Amino acid sequence: MSEYIYGKNAVKEALINNKRIICLYATDSNKDIIDLARRSGINYRVTDMKVINKMVTGLHQGVVLEVQDYKYSKFEELLVTNYKYPFIVVLDGLEDPHNLGAILRTCDASGVDGVIIPKNRSVGLNATVAKVSTGAIEYVKVAEVTNIAQTLKILKDKGYWIVGAEATAKSVDFRSMKYDMPTVLVVGSEGKGISRIVRESCDFLVQIPMVGHVNSLNASVSCSILIYEIMKYREV
Amino acid sequence: MSEYIYGKNAVKEALINNKRIICLYATDSNKDIIDLARRSGINYRVTDMKVINKMVTGLHQGVVLEVQDYKYSKFEELLVTNYKYPFIVVLDGLEDPHNLGAILRTCDASGVDGVIIPKNRSVGLNATVAKVSTGAIEYVKVAEVTNIAQTLKILKDKGYWIVGAEATAKSVDFRSMKYDMPTVLVVGSEGKGISRIVRESCDFLVQIPMVGHVNSLNASVSCSILIYEIMKYREV
Repeated sequence: MSEYIYGKNAVKEALINNKRIICLYATDSNKDIIDLARRSGINYRVTDMKVINKMVTGLHQGVVLEVQDYKYSKFEELLVTNYKYPFIVVLDGLEDPHNLGAILRTCDASGVDGVIIPKNRSVGLNATVAKVSTGAIEYVKVAEVTNIAQTLKILKDKGYWIVGAEATAKSVDFRSMKYDMPTVLVVGSEGKGISRIVRESCDFLVQIPMVGHVNSLNASVSCSILIYEIMKYREV
Repeated sequence: MSEYIYGKNAVKEALINNKRIICLYATDSNKDIIDLARRSGINYRVTDMKVINKMVTGLHQGVVLEVQDYKYSKFEELLVTNYKYPFIVVLDGLEDPHNLGAILRTCDASGVDGVIIPKNRSVGLNATVAKVSTGAIEYVKVAEVTNIAQTLKILKDKGYWIVGAEATAKSVDFRSMKYDMPTVLVVGSEGKGISRIVRESCDFLVQIPMVGHVNSLNASVSCSILIYEIMKYREV
């Protein structure tokens, strides 16, 4: 499968950074971009507006880049780790690509083994996520699964402990726990948090203490604070 | 000073949440919005498209809300604290309103005494920041100053220690420090980090350890991780 990136600026940036380019389509008025592709050894085809209009709707400015879809990892690949305590992040229904991009960036920086997202009702890997992740999307293993609760059960059977990030009456301060164990961190969606059935699969519920007026943090912020706390306990 | 919010959805949301409304201007086709204003006891004026076209350019859909500008606090107000160790955050040239909004949310949640931003070369308080902050903008004290380096000098004279977030050869792991002192955390811009002259004003430089391929975290993420670490040491 492939997708299209279009518009002068977006295409220029992708020509420089993207590793999955299939072909550039441009009208001959886009000489600088065609030149850039030629110098980088990228396949290109000079064509006319009619052809490009058929490929994409939207402001393409006569230039379209065909790239391979972002690749997902298999669930099993996420079980491979370089650390004493494996660490997987599960995002239960995140909606905002900016949040997913920022979280992937934190996951790469902190050495998380991989990220699991649900196939439905969730943002997936796309161009916005890629951009916000500043390249981390190329390195962090992301697996799609159809059923998060079932996946957590498999992970439990493999010896992981499930830590859900959710403020409830039973939740403990995230710093009161020691994460010297194979850990799965579950973070919910921006509006609704973790779904009930997934929450019931958690061994522990943790929360970030808050003393002000807002009752939640930005999803990528809270996820990243928790990741860095858990990361403290990892040993190679 | 006042500014305009326009478009049906944005105005509706503001009518419900905004505390600084001066007056609603709407064409009589916007009956639901006029009704909402009337029921909330908000000043409104039914007018025609010509008048509204003169007020704003852009897709206003015949409805404009005049609101007071976001208010900045005075620098001196930020020196007031409820905690044993005062804690101020300085943002040295942040550009993205999403980052500022998310940071204000974290500042409110964690009880930071206030935020200092430079008057120039920085995003200020605006509608996007307000939206992303999910209301925190109404509670966190934000002061604008003309010269960050000079402001840091004043804070030093008042007994604050200046902690800069910047990865340099001299920087230490952010967790290796104890923040049981009046603390100013300085975080730089998305692209360029802390400016040289500001960096030279810092008593300590800290960094967040990173083991992957990306060499930085999202600005609101790194700022929030540091805020929550420093917050650990605060006592009422």
